[in-house]
Amino acid sequence: MYRSVGTFLLSWLLWTAGLALPAPAITLAQEVSPDSQLLGFTREHARLQWSLEARLPALISAERMRTYHRALTAEPHHAGTEANERTAEYLAARLRAFGFDSVAFYRYEVLLPRPVERSVELIAPESYRLRLSEPPLAPDPDTRKDGVLPPFNAYSADGTVEAEVVYVNYGIPEDYRVLDSLGISVEGKIVLARYGRSWRGIKPKVAAERGALAVLLYSDPADDGYVRGDVMPDGKWRPEWGVQRGSVLDMPLYPGDPQTPGYPSKPEAERLPLAEIPNLPSIPVLPISYGDALPILRNLKGPVAPEAWRGGLPVTYHIGPGPARVRMTVRQDWSVRPIVNVIGYLWGREEPDKIIMAGGHRDAWTFGGRDPISGAASLLETARALAHLAREGHRPRRTIAIASWDAEEYGLIGSTEYAEEFADQLQQQLIVYLNRESYTAGPFQAGGSHALEPFINEVAQAVPAPEGPGTVWHFWKARTSAQRLVRTSRGERIRIAALGSGSDYTAFLDHLGIPSVNLGFDSGNGIYHSRYDTHWFFTTYGDPGFRYGVRLADLVARFLLRLANADILPFDYAITAETIQQYLDELEALQSQYLKEPVDLQAVRQAAQVLEATAIAFRAERDRILQLPAATLGAHRATLAAINEHLHRAEQGFLHPEGLPGRPWFRHMLYAPGFYTGYGVKTLPGIREAIEAGRAAEARAMAEATAAALERVRQHLVAALALAHTIR
Amino acid sequence: MYRSVGTFLLSWLLWTAGLALPAPAITLAQEVSPDSQLLGFTREHARLQWSLEARLPALISAERMRTYHRALTAEPHHAGTEANERTAEYLAARLRAFGFDSVAFYRYEVLLPRPVERSVELIAPESYRLRLSEPPLAPDPDTRKDGVLPPFNAYSADGTVEAEVVYVNYGIPEDYRVLDSLGISVEGKIVLARYGRSWRGIKPKVAAERGALAVLLYSDPADDGYVRGDVMPDGKWRPEWGVQRGSVLDMPLYPGDPQTPGYPSKPEAERLPLAEIPNLPSIPVLPISYGDALPILRNLKGPVAPEAWRGGLPVTYHIGPGPARVRMTVRQDWSVRPIVNVIGYLWGREEPDKIIMAGGHRDAWTFGGRDPISGAASLLETARALAHLAREGHRPRRTIAIASWDAEEYGLIGSTEYAEEFADQLQQQLIVYLNRESYTAGPFQAGGSHALEPFINEVAQAVPAPEGPGTVWHFWKARTSAQRLVRTSRGERIRIAALGSGSDYTAFLDHLGIPSVNLGFDSGNGIYHSRYDTHWFFTTYGDPGFRYGVRLADLVARFLLRLANADILPFDYAITAETIQQYLDELEALQSQYLKEPVDLQAVRQAAQVLEATAIAFRAERDRILQLPAATLGAHRATLAAINEHLHRAEQGFLHPEGLPGRPWFRHMLYAPGFYTGYGVKTLPGIREAIEAGRAAEARAMAEATAAALERVRQHLVAALALAHTIR
Repeated sequence: MYRSVGTFLLSWLLWTAGLALPAPAITLAQEVSPDSQLLGFTREHARLQWSLEARLPALISAERMRTYHRALTAEPHHAGTEANERTAEYLAARLRAFGFDSVAFYRYEVLLPRPVERSVELIAPESYRLRLSEPPLAPDPDTRKDGVLPPFNAYSADGTVEAEVVYVNYGIPEDYRVLDSLGISVEGKIVLARYGRSWRGIKPKVAAERGALAVLLYSDPADDGYVRGDVMPDGKWRPEWGVQRGSVLDMPLYPGDPQTPGYPSKPEAERLPLAEIPNLPSIPVLPISYGDALPILRNLKGPVAPEAWRGGLPVTYHIGPGPARVRMTVRQDWSVRPIVNVIGYLWGREEPDKIIMAGGHRDAWTFGGRDPISGAASLLETARALAHLAREGHRPRRTIAIASWDAEEYGLIGSTEYAEEFADQLQQQLIVYLNRESYTAGPFQAGGSHALEPFINEVAQAVPAPEGPGTVWHFWKARTSAQRLVRTSRGERIRIAALGSGSDYTAFLDHLGIPSVNLGFDSGNGIYHSRYDTHWFFTTYGDPGFRYGVRLADLVARFLLRLANADILPFDYAITAETIQQYLDELEALQSQYLKEPVDLQAVRQAAQVLEATAIAFRAERDRILQLPAATLGAHRATLAAINEHLHRAEQGFLHPEGLPGRPWFRHMLYAPGFYTGYGVKTLPGIREAIEAGRAAEARAMAEATAAALERVRQHLVAALALAHTIR
Repeated sequence: MYRSVGTFLLSWLLWTAGLALPAPAITLAQEVSPDSQLLGFTREHARLQWSLEARLPALISAERMRTYHRALTAEPHHAGTEANERTAEYLAARLRAFGFDSVAFYRYEVLLPRPVERSVELIAPESYRLRLSEPPLAPDPDTRKDGVLPPFNAYSADGTVEAEVVYVNYGIPEDYRVLDSLGISVEGKIVLARYGRSWRGIKPKVAAERGALAVLLYSDPADDGYVRGDVMPDGKWRPEWGVQRGSVLDMPLYPGDPQTPGYPSKPEAERLPLAEIPNLPSIPVLPISYGDALPILRNLKGPVAPEAWRGGLPVTYHIGPGPARVRMTVRQDWSVRPIVNVIGYLWGREEPDKIIMAGGHRDAWTFGGRDPISGAASLLETARALAHLAREGHRPRRTIAIASWDAEEYGLIGSTEYAEEFADQLQQQLIVYLNRESYTAGPFQAGGSHALEPFINEVAQAVPAPEGPGTVWHFWKARTSAQRLVRTSRGERIRIAALGSGSDYTAFLDHLGIPSVNLGFDSGNGIYHSRYDTHWFFTTYGDPGFRYGVRLADLVARFLLRLANADILPFDYAITAETIQQYLDELEALQSQYLKEPVDLQAVRQAAQVLEATAIAFRAERDRILQLPAATLGAHRATLAAINEHLHRAEQGFLHPEGLPGRPWFRHMLYAPGFYTGYGVKTLPGIREAIEAGRAAEARAMAEATAAALERVRQHLVAALALAHTIR
């Protein structure tokens, strides 16, 4: 379900602008060790790695991707269906055929509501029964197929509500502050909110906190419809009756099966009764098309909406309340159903218990043309290439795993249950988790653990751009704001984003502290979570010819292979520490806005500075070691392994054992989805959200916990440094 | 027809923002002489003047304004009709009844085309006959009346054209540069342009230069329709079928009767044959509603329009060309018809041959609820108050004239023919022309000759704000950008705007060099030049209760009375000279954009600096003289009159006898409507437009002419200064 609208909009603008830019000159990221030529590799191993990677392009085929894509989007396959079991089998069969050493199924039984009754009627001042369905589109035969889940918001409360309507713009907290200033209350009303600017589950949460009785979510044409461009089937934007399905779980509390917070949903697991689940919306929610929203908006009076609230429908946007009055009913079948993750392993030749994993989900709200099969098809071709090299004798040093998650759309359920089941084992074995799901032709984006920022820059420099001159790195840079460029003594580095939530990296990063990355190409579209997200869409507008998919498969293959083969793991915590100091600058600026007495953040800053210094010292040692003769290194295998163990475990130091205040599942002290944004990240979340809520004591406690976390990370680097000094 | 959309939008934003501002503290403009308390008055005369002005509020009645307004909007009264002759008679009768000493009719016979045939049909890919008419609105009985001119663009070429359509956004030169970059030509096409961002006559001019065959002008809902707010009759914005009428004369070439450029259209005048008139569009033009534009826009393909080009209709805006194909016909009756200006005089008691004039037009495209009768009604009440004071013995020292112009809508024709007929006499007698036509409740705006900037600030400080605390000056300041505030040693001054064109000050200022001012309240609306500009509109949305009208009548009365009674005329050419230096800074910045070798503007800058110094020296002398005993001044009456003569004539020094290159009618070297903007002013137009066109030699010649003009102005001040020294 990966989607971060704000970022998408910005990227789209930069992308559009970027097309006109001249080709950039080739530059290298600073942290590429000039002698080894590859981060973490000795000179000799770098040469081998380069020759291995040189074979990749010939092993990757757009045609095969098209075949996988067609097969995996042939029928609707939402979580808990036999159709989705068939996609698991297809995928497992492919991995086995490629030569993966082992393919495992991980099964859980989880709460997956499905709609049984949905109706919305405008009953005053005019009468209109909302359509709530998506008609087929002539050129796309898949849109005529049966079995598609009708538009609904999973985990909505059941019930019937009748009330006047209030239009609340995006329905995020700042919108309610505008309503307050106008003296308009949503208490006892049905809220009409447009999609965007937050995780959709935030909208009913905030509406319910304000006393609303129900929520209608709609897609405004200004956000992803005709205002943006031609609509399906003439273009990729949302047509009149297209609806965005989606979960409205309060995921910033915890993701995964809502009945088993923190532990896996095995058949025998104890489950919270429905009434006791804390992260379900308390009011009914339904998604509607802009075709269906128009008659409601047309019948609102009250103040004219502020300029920023006006969308693209041909009416003057009013806030209400009323006179539009709506009656709506939602009823779901709240069954527990089976889901299955599929993971294929290509065992490592030297450190088989150390794993580099790439994964993405497989379940789709409808056909999954973009979301998520685009990613699954490209990742399969990565898997095939790596297996092919392994079969020819180039087995990676560490294990490479390719994962396919189920029930992501409902709330990151497959990956979360898996991470909860194998928490200890993953913290011991999983070195990096790379999330790779949906993509389309569009700008390149990368987010994740900042220790991997130099490594990501380096990998991006190895793959040709999908269009235009240079590499993916140049393509990325041309579409990135100048503020995200760091000029270094040896070139430039593009800053990666911090991760919020919205896809399957969440459990790995935020719950287990495993260094995680989410990257890919993407651009805006209007088929998101609709019946129109099909093979036809993807091959017509998503990535015709799989040009971007081929580059992505290549890039992911190198990403995995390098991490699997590196002599010293390419983590650079100096970058993390420097980034933390920037976040602290932001927090200092924020304090005066929310707190009378600023909280003293000096201890955190000092901890970050000391961490940075330690990491820089280690970086120098790493570069020294990588230039030693092979024989010397051969004699220090165990020491190198111990160094790598510390590097791999360092990120886990950022976990606060008690987790964030009020949501203990989220334990990472650097990154978390915002409690009131959901997709959007809050960095240094413990401190930041306490400041924003004006809770000074909590902010102080969180500052202490954060400083302690940084010190735990540093202790790993101190240990690695001590070990490094012994290698001579 | 006064309307400057760009300024309006800005003002509207400031207006909206301004409402939330705290009440500003009272401050005085710097140039108010602290001893006399009134610019240009001795202390004793200032006291008299203040006591006279104190009586004004009681003399001004909202109810009478409503009566005038109802009478003057009772029937459609476009120029050349008997109905408009009746409005002239009504107005003259009022002035006579008030006690004006003389009321004169000035008659001309001018070219006033009227539509005979109008049709537009979309003939492919679907068929749709455009409505081209405005249905009545239930709550407004006037909209059911007969006699309204159907929507048309006066002076359009006649003819029938059939061609594919290209959407050109606002149809201004920069839009065509975007089309060039996309490789789209309008040659042989019909251009669809939205209203706004320029004088409408620019749009067919530019389109024809690019080879277009015809132009359709439409009002996009994003500019003045439902995107801005509720539409008539629920709100003041443009309804689906509302159309903006208007002239498409190329007025930046010359305004007035197009058949008699530079001389008055008396019955016996020689007239250019139609085919030889240089400022008529060469192609047919018709205005349409957004209801009628929708089927055309819906049927355009080709590239999606850039984001800034997209309006508020529920379609993806495409540029074309085609496949929308349109056939259109325009045919007009090109008759010469009679028009009449009405001017009432209140003779001055001491200098009856020196005149202060306020005027505005009377003809309307339809009923004239806002445009222009709002202004005429308020001005009548000013006239009544001044006549009342005169009858009670407070006759002004100089003559006050109240003018009502005809045929402004067609091209400033009444005022232009009058200014051309009495050019010499006006240059001798007319001290200031104040233009006062349409207004509505909204921000205050003022533009004009910069020598009057301190005076305008002072007058605005004498009248209570129409809403909120303080005076009109504070109301003005709160809705003005901080960049327009000049902090002076004694307080703050608000900069006035330079005047472009679009109303009847044009001939006085640009052709005759008479210091002119245009000021008033106004805000955006969607009834402009439509059938819906009625008494109902004005009293419901324009200025319900005439609260703003009352303040305006008061302000205008003080403006006229002070100029009529001042001992020394309150012109301050130091402000003009300082403003010119700012314009020169802009031009210097502009040069690098357009010229390889910058033109040397040092001589102009020096001339401005010397003018400023001279004007400052005169200002000091003025303040000294105004503190002399009454007896001393009494002994120097003739000298004072001679000083005032120089002050009054100084502005005429800015006229370049040969006029601007290619348009000799426009002679002012500081202000002119832009050749490609029309409404928008170009300051230092001779130099600026030569630079923008890359014509360096012309820019040099214009710089020379401008420096010479500044020197002519300065010579008047030198002479005034020399005379002032003799008064002791």
